Amino acid sequence: MKLKRSGRMVDLTTYLLQHPHQLIPLSYFVERYESAKSSISEDLAIIKEHFEQYGYGKITTVPGAAGGVRYVPGISDKEAEQIINELVQQLEDPSRILPGGYLYVTDIIGHPHLVNQIGRLFASSFASRKIDVVMTIATKGIPLAYAVASHLNVPVVIVRSNSRVTEGSTVSINYVSGSTKRIQTMALARRSIKQGSNVLIIDDFMKAGGTIKGMISIISEFQANLAGIGVLVEAQEVSERLVDDYVSLARLSEVNERENRIEVRPGNYFQGKGE
Amino acid sequence: MKLKRSGRMVDLTTYLLQHPHQLIPLSYFVERYESAKSSISEDLAIIKEHFEQYGYGKITTVPGAAGGVRYVPGISDKEAEQIINELVQQLEDPSRILPGGYLYVTDIIGHPHLVNQIGRLFASSFASRKIDVVMTIATKGIPLAYAVASHLNVPVVIVRSNSRVTEGSTVSINYVSGSTKRIQTMALARRSIKQGSNVLIIDDFMKAGGTIKGMISIISEFQANLAGIGVLVEAQEVSERLVDDYVSLARLSEVNERENRIEVRPGNYFQGKGE
Repeated sequence: MKLKRSGRMVDLTTYLLQHPHQLIPLSYFVERYESAKSSISEDLAIIKEHFEQYGYGKITTVPGAAGGVRYVPGISDKEAEQIINELVQQLEDPSRILPGGYLYVTDIIGHPHLVNQIGRLFASSFASRKIDVVMTIATKGIPLAYAVASHLNVPVVIVRSNSRVTEGSTVSINYVSGSTKRIQTMALARRSIKQGSNVLIIDDFMKAGGTIKGMISIISEFQANLAGIGVLVEAQEVSERLVDDYVSLARLSEVNERENRIEVRPGNYFQGKGE
Repeated sequence: MKLKRSGRMVDLTTYLLQHPHQLIPLSYFVERYESAKSSISEDLAIIKEHFEQYGYGKITTVPGAAGGVRYVPGISDKEAEQIINELVQQLEDPSRILPGGYLYVTDIIGHPHLVNQIGRLFASSFASRKIDVVMTIATKGIPLAYAVASHLNVPVVIVRSNSRVTEGSTVSINYVSGSTKRIQTMALARRSIKQGSNVLIIDDFMKAGGTIKGMISIISEFQANLAGIGVLVEAQEVSERLVDDYVSLARLSEVNERENRIEVRPGNYFQGKGE
């Protein structure tokens, strides 16, 4: 139906936010709003300006017959800092300490709004890389992986520590957990990744990196490529890290069960940005 | 910073979409845009009109000093029908049949865009109920539960079939799987639900309903209340269903392994709406 500018702004904004990383032909909007292409272009220029101003991301236009407009989710450094600080603060709460020096983090990952912001953070961090699929391992990485994938507009595949009958044939590997040195198994459904895909690994926690190294092995079993690694929290005190090129949001420097104290620092997120 | 109407429309729309089911005081936007309250009210009226027109949901305003504006995600019947039809069509693909008559559905749940739409569908279906938390059971229900929860702005809790040390103390129950009649265990972290909470159960598949009945038992163990049940796919051929008040999107009427045929129908989603 024919819309005025203010109405088009509402719908265009909503539509772009719901279709990240998709090239949408301008003709789609010309039809949708029964408006001239030049008006749509002006609308998009306004949206572009405000998205950049508020740090929601970029609007890129590709000229020509096969062209269109694409929304690439982003985040301002200020907002990224706020999210990371909130995460650090929440993680430092001493009531999280569980027997054995483990940390209770289930509630943090339980909040969709925070998870969604974290997803936007990782998605903007990896926005310039070619990514076809996000990989994680059950269970806690799943919400984070979906949040990242929804901002990248790619599917998620979930590696499991057991293979289920409802997955069909699976590829499984043995790997050595970096911190406990135990041999473990992980499996992924044969149909889930195409050869040559570019895979982004997302997980909630990394200690020595054994689990992530296992996922990297799975990726090569599928003849796919590693496109990047993002972890929510990394442990600092690791004698030998098995993985070195990754983005982390928080770094756990100490869990002192006796003194009931947790020390958390921001991860390496900003380091690649020259800070 | 001071913004013109078209700029305010872009940011207001984005802000509301990112903060569903939250009452936001108008004064917040008055400050954010350095604009008069009357202008903000006019902006919101335009957004309200277009959100309703395109079936994105409702904008409600609460007058008075403690008032504000709230976005309640919704979906048009037309869009709901499209999503359900797409789901049915995808499920009917015979290459999904696995040995033993199981179905491969991992790829459907792997697409964040579809999962997100399904989440909006369930969220709008339960929008009028008081919901404090969404509950699911690992693993396949997790993405759906997060999608629903993000549109309801409530946290997610994940019931597990094993209890993990990083969850702290857990409450566990035994339940009988309705179809296999085996006794199984499920567990939930003690800290995850407050007494008196209203809990929406979301799961990917329901056969006889034993697993969901188990989750209902867990809810009463926590002295919380069941607020609703949503399942993506239900099996039709069940002699005795253990659960009766639920919303389903698709109904699996037959998996014929010999003839390589799957029959799927829309679920009961539209039945409560007088269709």
